[in-house]
Formats: sequence, structure tokens, C-alpha cells
Amino acid sequence: MNDTHRISGVLSPVVTPFRQDLSPDPERFVRQCRWLLDQDVGLAVFGTNSEANSLSVEEKIELLDRLVDAGLDATRMMPGTGHCALPDSVRLTAHAMKLGCGGVLMLPPFYYKGVSDDGLFRSFAEVIERVGEARLRAYLYHIPPVAQVPITLPLVERLLKAYPTQTAGMKDSGGDWKNTQAFLDAFARSGFDVFAGSEIFLLQNMRSGGAGCISATANVNPGAIARLQATWKNADADAQQARLDVIRGIFAKFPMIPALKAAIAHYGGEAPWATVRPPLVPLTAEGARALVSELDQNMFTMPGLKV
Amino acid sequence: MNDTHRISGVLSPVVTPFRQDLSPDPERFVRQCRWLLDQDVGLAVFGTNSEANSLSVEEKIELLDRLVDAGLDATRMMPGTGHCALPDSVRLTAHAMKLGCGGVLMLPPFYYKGVSDDGLFRSFAEVIERVGEARLRAYLYHIPPVAQVPITLPLVERLLKAYPTQTAGMKDSGGDWKNTQAFLDAFARSGFDVFAGSEIFLLQNMRSGGAGCISATANVNPGAIARLQATWKNADADAQQARLDVIRGIFAKFPMIPALKAAIAHYGGEAPWATVRPPLVPLTAEGARALVSELDQNMFTMPGLKV
Repeated sequence: MNDTHRISGVLSPVVTPFRQDLSPDPERFVRQCRWLLDQDVGLAVFGTNSEANSLSVEEKIELLDRLVDAGLDATRMMPGTGHCALPDSVRLTAHAMKLGCGGVLMLPPFYYKGVSDDGLFRSFAEVIERVGEARLRAYLYHIPPVAQVPITLPLVERLLKAYPTQTAGMKDSGGDWKNTQAFLDAFARSGFDVFAGSEIFLLQNMRSGGAGCISATANVNPGAIARLQATWKNADADAQQARLDVIRGIFAKFPMIPALKAAIAHYGGEAPWATVRPPLVPLTAEGARALVSELDQNMFTMPGLKV
Repeated sequence: MNDTHRISGVLSPVVTPFRQDLSPDPERFVRQCRWLLDQDVGLAVFGTNSEANSLSVEEKIELLDRLVDAGLDATRMMPGTGHCALPDSVRLTAHAMKLGCGGVLMLPPFYYKGVSDDGLFRSFAEVIERVGEARLRAYLYHIPPVAQVPITLPLVERLLKAYPTQTAGMKDSGGDWKNTQAFLDAFARSGFDVFAGSEIFLLQNMRSGGAGCISATANVNPGAIARLQATWKNADADAQQARLDVIRGIFAKFPMIPALKAAIAHYGGEAPWATVRPPLVPLTAEGARALVSELDQNMFTMPGLKV
């Protein structure tokens, strides 16, 4: 479990750019990912904020291939590969392994509600067994407000026992620090890496032995978030955290994914970035103006962004 | 909207047989579907009870092809084609159209929660536009306990206005008769066909101008449910309904999908039928015995079943 190249730090669930016809735009995607890596932010592509479940498996394979073809470092990639259907999860996870991705972030199957830990264990175990790669580093994705299917302590305990090499960690997007703390207390000493689901909890997570965060707003504020993660022992850490919280708080007033895309469209000067796939809808013009106005008032910038 | 071959009556969300290695078993699937058609029950394949969201799009295309290749009547098929990802929904819906399916049952995209009717309208509209078939008959699938994303009255009103030919009806699996009644009151006179999501509501639905039902237990009790639908004006209709309710009530004591499969495995004498894909788990041996014992006590049979 003491891998030398283990993923840690800050990752962005990279928003997926669409063209007018709603097809993914790989060129724009590569540029955005390169910009994030330049800020020392890793690529948790195909997360909730990436509209990953609005993409077909084929589209995800194509986008991941394009990143690697463009020379981006696969060891910094943690694509979301958990689907409702076992063959989809196996297919995308195996492809990520083939490309050398540093990890995969796995949603539980999320259609059926109230499923047992037995069933969830079987789901993850089948993926791990069928992919059959000792190199696999799987991070379990706990996001009950959306998936409605939680990752529990007993489930992680069972997976760690059965697959100590592949059960690498989790992302906790539940929004409840007590839950994150419980996973840290139970498993951090076994080398299980806990990523907070928002930079709101970044400093707290680093101080408690966590690995970093994977956060929506790392799409728009990557440099500042990565800086706190790299310097969390410094005297100004609490001040850095407070500044991050202000920016996060502004985005949190809006529907998150359309707001992230509206900000990238505005600060990058390219309107098409605002496009979302249904069932999401873009911010209204009025909403986008309100977002940008509040960001401007807070001296928000996106340095180096070339969309 | 007054199609001559419009689907009505009773349909089964056909359970999907898996082999030991969890791959779908097309031969067993064809036999089961033929048996259902012989009982005058239509084929709502790829529904919730079919573990449809546990199947890849490719697996669903293959299974649908096998049914049509086996000579089963495509006009009696209403495959579930609604996915989280637009390209998946378009692909399977277009394929169902190519095969001549009588309709398609469409889940809303169900990953994001709390999405707007605007976003859901766009989702369904994009599928209808991209498939581009005047022959398409789309039935909207309301199953809030599972999908968590509802089909609302204003959404249906908008879809009927924009696509009066393709917006054919709905399945209401909400379990609340008042909701079904509200859709009947609002849209039945426009030729919008409302299917109850359980035979519990079959007689009530027929008496209120509904089109029939699409019910889990039509997998195991098809003949009796179809008989009530065909003879609902008869004097014994309430007695028939009461008898259906007894059988439904027995299955409802168990996790539904594993229980349906356990019953087919037992009465058909083929143990592999009990296999489910994760995240579901099969009934325990004790659970299966309890189910069969109670069914036997109630003279339950599955006449003609050859699994």
C-alpha cells in the first residue's frame, strides 16, 4: 500500500466541454486538463461535475484516449469508472488501467436504492476481479445526496480485507465532516487515502491525516486550492482556507455545474463552454452576470486560462 | 393519436436470465418472452424488474435482436430505453424503432436529483428529435421511489404539446393512486395512455379510462392478470382483483426481483434462473422456501412455464 506514485493532493472533477450539438469537445477538454495539471491539480475526469453519467462509455473512452494521446500524464488521472451496469464499469476501468491511470474513482451502482452492503461488495469485487490488475487503485465514491447509495464503514472494511492492494481510498462528498473523520479514524493507518469532496474540508482533512480533496471548484480555483494543500503546515493556512471558503461560497449560491461552466466561459472568453447536457440547464444570462459580478468583487481570477 | 396497433393491456417488465458468469442468457430470455406472449402479456423488456440498468446498451441491443430473430412480435414490445446519458437513450430507442417495436418506456435521466422540468423536457425532446421517427410511441416512466426523478403533470403537458404523436403515455410506478388519477383526468382524453405500475391498481385504472398495467408480478402471474384486464367489465372483476392482490401481497413480502426469479427457478425447475446481477443479491435458500411455501398454500401455479 506504500506505492511510490500514489495519487494525492488536489484533483478536479474536470467539467466536460460540449459543442453546440451537445457532442464532447476533445480539444477544449485537453486544453482545460493541461491548464489544471499546470496548477498542480490532478484529473478526476468523469466525476459528478463532469456530467460523466450524461456521457456514454464510448465517449468517455474517446476523451480519455485524447488526454493520453496529447501527452498528459496518466499517473495524475483518476477517471470515474463506476456505472450502474457491471460490464460498463469493467470496460472503462480496464481501459483506464491499459492507459496507465493512477487510479479510478468508483461510484456504486446507483439505480436501485436500499441495496445491501453484500450487494455493493459483490459489485466492487466483480470489477476488481474481472479487471484483474494488481496495479489498480480504486477509490470509492461516497456521494449520498446524488447517488443515494452510500459507502459504509463495514463495506470498506470488507473490501480492504479482500483486496488490500486495490482498495486505495475514497472521496467523501457527503458534506458531513464527522463521516470523513470516522473513515480516517478507521482506515487511514491502513494506507487508505481519504479525499474530502470539497476544499471547505481541505485543511481539516490534511490535519487529520487525509490525502487531499477532489472538489468541483478545483475546476475554477485550482491554483489556490493546490497551494493550501502543499503548504497546509504554514502559518497562513487558516487564512488561505478562509479565502478558499469565500470563493466556494459564491459558487455554492448557484447550481454548481452550470456555474463552473459559466465562469470558465466568462474568464476564458469562450461562450460555448457554458453548454451543459440535459437534464441540466445552463445559468440564465442574469444568473451568469450575478455570479461573475460577485466573483469580480472578490478579486477572483483564473490565471493562465486559455479555453 | 388513434393508432390502430397502439399497445394496451398487460405488459411484463421481463426478468433477465443470467448464466453463472453473470452474462445474459438469450435462449432462456426468448423462451420466457414467448411464454408471456402466449398468456397475452406484452413485453416491457428492460424495465426496473429486468435489471435493465445493470445491463450495458450492447447487451440490451443483443437481447432485443434475439427476440425479433426468434420471430416474436415486435409490435408487442415496449423496451425500456431511457438512460442517464443522452447518446445511450438515442441509440437504444433508434434500434427499437428499426426493429418495429410498438413503443418504448423511458426513464428520465436519474443520476442528478432535483433537476428542473425544463431540463427533463430537453432530455426527452432531444431523444425524440434525434430519433426522428413519427412511428415512435414513447411512454414516460414515473418511478420516484427508485429513480427519484419524477414525471410531473406540467412536463407531460409540454411534451404533449410539442410532440403529440410521440408522447404516447406513461407508466405510474409511484404507488399512489391519486397521482395516477390526476394524469388520467388531465390527459386520458387526449389519447395519452396511462398504465398502472402494479396490478393492484388494474381494475381501478381500467374503470377510470386507463390502458392497463405494466407490473413486476406479470412475470409470474401473467395469465390471471391478463384475464382481469380482458374481462374487467364482468361481474367477477372484483373477485379476480382480490385474488391477484393475494398473490401480489406474497411477492411484496420479499425483495421483488430476487423473489420473481426464485419463483421462476422453482416452478420451472431450473435453479440458474435465480441468478441476479450485483448490486442485487438472490434470496437466501430459507427465503426462497418461505416464498414457495406461501405460494403453494395459495394454490399458485405457473401453467405452461418451460424455462
